[in-house]
Amino acid sequence: MLNPIYTDNLIKQALLEDINYIDAATDYLIPQDQLGRAVFMAKADGIVCGVDVAMRVFEVLDSRDFEYKIFKNDGEHVSYGDIIAELSGPVRTLLKGERTALNLIQHMSGIATAANKIIRLVEDTGVSIADTRKTLPGLRSLQKYAVTVGGAKNHRYNLSDGAMLKDNHIDAGGGITNAVAALRKRLGHMIKIEVEVRNLDELKEAIEAEADVIMLDNMDVETMKRAVEITDGRALLEASGGITEETIREVAETGVDIISIGALTHSVKAFDISMKIKA
Amino acid sequence: MLNPIYTDNLIKQALLEDINYIDAATDYLIPQDQLGRAVFMAKADGIVCGVDVAMRVFEVLDSRDFEYKIFKNDGEHVSYGDIIAELSGPVRTLLKGERTALNLIQHMSGIATAANKIIRLVEDTGVSIADTRKTLPGLRSLQKYAVTVGGAKNHRYNLSDGAMLKDNHIDAGGGITNAVAALRKRLGHMIKIEVEVRNLDELKEAIEAEADVIMLDNMDVETMKRAVEITDGRALLEASGGITEETIREVAETGVDIISIGALTHSVKAFDISMKIKA
Amino acid sequence: MLNPIYTDNLIKQALLEDINYIDAATDYLIPQDQLGRAVFMAKADGIVCGVDVAMRVFEVLDSRDFEYKIFKNDGEHVSYGDIIAELSGPVRTLLKGERTALNLIQHMSGIATAANKIIRLVEDTGVSIADTRKTLPGLRSLQKYAVTVGGAKNHRYNLSDGAMLKDNHIDAGGGITNAVAALRKRLGHMIKIEVEVRNLDELKEAIEAEADVIMLDNMDVETMKRAVEITDGRALLEASGGITEETIREVAETGVDIISIGALTHSVKAFDISMKIKA
Amino acid sequence: MLNPIYTDNLIKQALLEDINYIDAATDYLIPQDQLGRAVFMAKADGIVCGVDVAMRVFEVLDSRDFEYKIFKNDGEHVSYGDIIAELSGPVRTLLKGERTALNLIQHMSGIATAANKIIRLVEDTGVSIADTRKTLPGLRSLQKYAVTVGGAKNHRYNLSDGAMLKDNHIDAGGGITNAVAALRKRLGHMIKIEVEVRNLDELKEAIEAEADVIMLDNMDVETMKRAVEITDGRALLEASGGITEETIREVAETGVDIISIGALTHSVKAFDISMKIKA
Amino acid sequence: MLNPIYTDNLIKQALLEDINYIDAATDYLIPQDQLGRAVFMAKADGIVCGVDVAMRVFEVLDSRDFEYKIFKNDGEHVSYGDIIAELSGPVRTLLKGERTALNLIQHMSGIATAANKIIRLVEDTGVSIADTRKTLPGLRSLQKYAVTVGGAKNHRYNLSDGAMLKDNHIDAGGGITNAVAALRKRLGHMIKIEVEVRNLDELKEAIEAEADVIMLDNMDVETMKRAVEITDGRALLEASGGITEETIREVAETGVDIISIGALTHSVKAFDISMKIKA
Amino acid sequence: MLNPIYTDNLIKQALLEDINYIDAATDYLIPQDQLGRAVFMAKADGIVCGVDVAMRVFEVLDSRDFEYKIFKNDGEHVSYGDIIAELSGPVRTLLKGERTALNLIQHMSGIATAANKIIRLVEDTGVSIADTRKTLPGLRSLQKYAVTVGGAKNHRYNLSDGAMLKDNHIDAGGGITNAVAALRKRLGHMIKIEVEVRNLDELKEAIEAEADVIMLDNMDVETMKRAVEITDGRALLEASGGITEETIREVAETGVDIISIGALTHSVKAFDISMKIKA
Repeated sequence: MLNPIYTDNLIKQALLEDINYIDAATDYLIPQDQLGRAVFMAKADGIVCGVDVAMRVFEVLDSRDFEYKIFKNDGEHVSYGDIIAELSGPVRTLLKGERTALNLIQHMSGIATAANKIIRLVEDTGVSIADTRKTLPGLRSLQKYAVTVGGAKNHRYNLSDGAMLKDNHIDAGGGITNAVAALRKRLGHMIKIEVEVRNLDELKEAIEAEADVIMLDNMDVETMKRAVEITDGRALLEASGGITEETIREVAETGVDIISIGALTHSVKAFDISMKIKA
Repeated sequence: MLNPIYTDNLIKQALLEDINYIDAATDYLIPQDQLGRAVFMAKADGIVCGVDVAMRVFEVLDSRDFEYKIFKNDGEHVSYGDIIAELSGPVRTLLKGERTALNLIQHMSGIATAANKIIRLVEDTGVSIADTRKTLPGLRSLQKYAVTVGGAKNHRYNLSDGAMLKDNHIDAGGGITNAVAALRKRLGHMIKIEVEVRNLDELKEAIEAEADVIMLDNMDVETMKRAVEITDGRALLEASGGITEETIREVAETGVDIISIGALTHSVKAFDISMKIKA
Repeated sequence: MLNPIYTDNLIKQALLEDINYIDAATDYLIPQDQLGRAVFMAKADGIVCGVDVAMRVFEVLDSRDFEYKIFKNDGEHVSYGDIIAELSGPVRTLLKGERTALNLIQHMSGIATAANKIIRLVEDTGVSIADTRKTLPGLRSLQKYAVTVGGAKNHRYNLSDGAMLKDNHIDAGGGITNAVAALRKRLGHMIKIEVEVRNLDELKEAIEAEADVIMLDNMDVETMKRAVEITDGRALLEASGGITEETIREVAETGVDIISIGALTHSVKAFDISMKIKA
Repeated sequence: MLNPIYTDNLIKQALLEDINYIDAATDYLIPQDQLGRAVFMAKADGIVCGVDVAMRVFEVLDSRDFEYKIFKNDGEHVSYGDIIAELSGPVRTLLKGERTALNLIQHMSGIATAANKIIRLVEDTGVSIADTRKTLPGLRSLQKYAVTVGGAKNHRYNLSDGAMLKDNHIDAGGGITNAVAALRKRLGHMIKIEVEVRNLDELKEAIEAEADVIMLDNMDVETMKRAVEITDGRALLEASGGITEETIREVAETGVDIISIGALTHSVKAFDISMKIKA
Repeated sequence: MLNPIYTDNLIKQALLEDINYIDAATDYLIPQDQLGRAVFMAKADGIVCGVDVAMRVFEVLDSRDFEYKIFKNDGEHVSYGDIIAELSGPVRTLLKGERTALNLIQHMSGIATAANKIIRLVEDTGVSIADTRKTLPGLRSLQKYAVTVGGAKNHRYNLSDGAMLKDNHIDAGGGITNAVAALRKRLGHMIKIEVEVRNLDELKEAIEAEADVIMLDNMDVETMKRAVEITDGRALLEASGGITEETIREVAETGVDIISIGALTHSVKAFDISMKIKA
Repeated sequence: MLNPIYTDNLIKQALLEDINYIDAATDYLIPQDQLGRAVFMAKADGIVCGVDVAMRVFEVLDSRDFEYKIFKNDGEHVSYGDIIAELSGPVRTLLKGERTALNLIQHMSGIATAANKIIRLVEDTGVSIADTRKTLPGLRSLQKYAVTVGGAKNHRYNLSDGAMLKDNHIDAGGGITNAVAALRKRLGHMIKIEVEVRNLDELKEAIEAEADVIMLDNMDVETMKRAVEITDGRALLEASGGITEETIREVAETGVDIISIGALTHSVKAFDISMKIKA
């Protein structure tokens, strides 16, 4: 569901980066007509993501002679040793695309696996896990897609498709009530307004101002519980800030609607996948 | 030492991603002429990296009214609470650039900090720590620069500026000896040849073939020690594969010349830096 | 509030289009050091828009010697003969940027003027006027900005930042209720869901399904009135389809919340502005 | 006859604009393997243009499974209800490309239809109708192509492929005679020189100077008749400025060779075409 | 008179090519704050071209601290040892821009010098020397500009801004007469039509068809003389094909109007210019 | 072995340059469905290069109906009259791609032929011939590839993949010994260090400093012989500066390892190849 034009641009950028002008070993040692096969294999347990993107790397390099078969699609659970895909084509193509394809699939699977781990920690609490705008330059679509493949959800994609009022906005707008009202007058009807609050007084004002979403910024669990009671469904509540794997279950059980976690995209651990080529 | 054209392109790409068409909250609430100040503050201990890049984000957005002063330059150690830079300019500019600037500086400082941590683990052993091509699409220059800021070194940048012979190349080339010789005939005199070996027999063949660098692939520490003795300075030896913070000192003490670590760039933990704006 | 990186890219694209390699008359007849002045003057009554963009055209061509003073800012009403801006700089620069600058400001002012005319037709009814995705390739940000300058609002910017369920989606999703529920489970909490309905039964189902916005597709005025009564504030109602300047007041008075009008961006009449250069 | 590289770039730009990262409704509700059919149908009478471009939108999105059949080619007259093309492919592809394809074909058909209407107004007078450089940024090729499809002709494409001397050029060049002579010395032999004149004295000087084309700027009909007599075929005469559908026939009958009309491209009314998808 | 946007794009492309990620020697050895001076000096006699472009290379790298003074402008004659420009700024900037700046100015000066040499060979004959479309990818504007700086003229810039009928066109069009007539009906009034002829019969037909320009393709000198007599000013005559420095004077004296020479741009000899840096 | 993404980008850039919006003659005279055949024929003796690139031009224009057969591959010797390739497809496609394809193949074959000529001059001396960074903007990969096709080798590709110490670097670094040592500490293990020396004292210092390669800058043949004796295999020696076809054999026989020649890429003579189209 990634935009194929975005994906192709990203793949081309990566391939230009990695094959600056030749593949010094491959171009001079591997015969142009040598064909081979390869497999992508999981070297750990997790959720695979980026399989199509990885295959597309080779297609972009070689639109004629490359073929593949996918055994594990984006979102499927894989265990150590599982074959994710089989590829065949010129060995040159396989070697030239290998690093770029692995870099992509390992990063995306890393995100999906981490998101999925978080999801399972809060199972049955009804809370949604959301990502943030803490992504890497040029990779936001890729990363946010991987978050959804892991089962979490996307917070706003950019500064345009959702309004988040932080203290600077609220101060400039003359307080929460005035700021929300002023914004509502200007924004289109498809844009939600979220207000960041630091205490329960601000929460109450934000509810009165009819904010669509209210972010509870770095609150402790008890305060969040009170916030849920006070809000009573009149706005969506998002918990954010300093939430770890250790504390997330407790936060989820306060009854907040959403927990957002920057680490899903800003601190990704690559998921180990190997590519073995047989000439 | 990053190419400013590369950096500007990356910053523009990130800003287009984050400000798709408006900043829904800022454009409608913050007066156009409101000026403010901000600080970048370290929220952890480590090596800062990407300070110029982060400042450049705001300059790209606003070439007229934005000013800054840097207190901690790339490569300096920072502690929790240290002010890295002070900025002043239109509050709109500060708010619009905030996320992009933080995403960049946090990623880069995360890499520099991790690289530096590794460096200190192997202090006084004479070994060099190198990165790999396991980088993220479009970010290779940025990531490899951060690796050097942390005190580690760059392995080859791409498939063109160094030749690495893996098993597929060696098989196609008729063995290590033939492959190295064939390649030497074709490659320019500025390109080094590295051969990946899996055992000491291959090592000996690679030495005889006058490989410039030999990669010891996933060898245990004892075998690496033997490899160092056998090689006796006739080639550079690079240890690679499965080396962790726990084992790296032991590997370094085998006498290998280089240890390469993919995690420096493929599994980055963002370094926490905050930006506080005072309107 | 246009993203300056977007604007600069667009201006450069336009200038490359218009000055393919030389300005055949200017480069050979106007001395390089000849300075001149120019004015942008309104040749009709309306709302000016794109003044900064037009001035930026000349700055992009000549970052050193070009200066300007703006008398009418985006959103201000102008009458025939009003001076919008005064420019000074090399005559070559003024001549080379003239057509591109005029093309931009005339198109943007045309949109703002048309939007403003519509706004005034529905004054005091409480309805919002919104644009659509019926924009020209590459110009969406520019056009949607001009719509807001004229006083109207932006509907969703693209297929990502709002979900609109049309008949194909509803059929595939198993009816309105199921489709909205299925979508809600997948979408992030910042995305609103709008459902397109063709009759009052569908309207009722959409209300029950808790759609955020409901589009009344090509309904007559009486049906819209009924729709407003039935909905009773439980969702926002958008009227769309076949609404003209003649009928819009009547539609607005039905009590719908939003009227969306494709013609604001797909059928733009340029607003006449002249540029006179005095060498 | 549009350059396919230009067209593909424009389509990709439009699709990136419209599908920022997902199609929020389609990606989550329409099954990936659901196939469907669609038709493009004329909702008014006019000249269709951009059919290939519209079909190409879907091919760019989906190079494998999309097929189409064209019933009305660029330049053909269509009446309300005529089927222009039939498409088949994944419903996701049809939905994602719909808006972009319609935006293109409606704009292009709008231009072709308007151009054709003008052409018919001056039928049998021997005059040519030409467009201008009053086009929208990035769309010049597209718009000028549509003008020719409607039966009108293209004036110069940019500042490089024809020289137009306005008052600033003439003043700097030391009068019409000197300016034309100076320019002729510098320009290549494939470039025509057009001189803009405001009265008959300037016309006579331009003829003597052997201008290839002379633009009669905002002259009344009687003066244009005199200009035609005076010129007597020694240069091409172009009428320009303030010519409307009401006055164009009269202008054409003065005997001028070309009438140029900016509104053909700066004030386009979209031609209504619908796309109906059957899943 | 090069479009600055084109020039900047080209310079950035070249700098990204040459400084892939670091300047391995400069970044690690030259202190960031070391300032220096440099001169561009002619190492041969000829016409200098590309001075502004070369200076711009350094400005693009360093918009703050770089300054320069030009002693020889584009089009001026230089002798061995002449100082063309003096530069000052950070030594790092001078070293990083050196190769790119020299590559540009040497290529452009090579073209200007060659063009000028040809011009002088045909002095006082009244003939114009023109380039062709035999240029290098991406460099057409640069090369054609250098041709004019050397004193020669530009033939058509591309396939759009002039029509050249070769045998395939003439055959498809039903002979010269029909082809020219058919084309005239379709082309705008600013486009000239040139017909390529291989003998005097074709020449006569082309004259009758009122071609604007006629290319005498690979004719001998005697035939060209006859062609000039026959044409008698009714069309411009262009000699093309196999004309060398040895034969060009003789061709010019036949009375043809234009001689076009592909070698001006397809076989360029770099003009030697050195850059000496004093730290 | 050119990166296909690089090649396609370059071809698209060239085609946009050459077909700005229409092919004025072809689009209006050649029927859309007219098919034809064409041959590429050598008009001189040499080494052909760029055959795939030239064929790719037509494929990029027309991915459906274009076919070709190659008779002479890159690197093969061709004689006057040899058919290099046969093409078939729409005549429009053949005409539109002709100039771009020829410009590419003639430039590349010109380089390969020149490189090959040099290679044969030094046959049996054991010396390698290398290119330089004296290439044209955007064309470096293309040109360096052609150099290897002709049998010569590539010097470093850019400032990143090899370190060359010139006098400025050496002065700033505190002499050759210090500079090389300082650099070695910072550079990755895959980067070679080359030192430029002007006399035998500097040579000796460079050898002691363990430079990988030493460039003998503008030395006479006798000095070079002494340099070879002194070096005795402890470093690679590169001769550079002022070496012509007349002197190269003598230089080669001094025993240096590499001779680098800027003219291979900065002063290219196009190799004559024709394209004849039969409709």
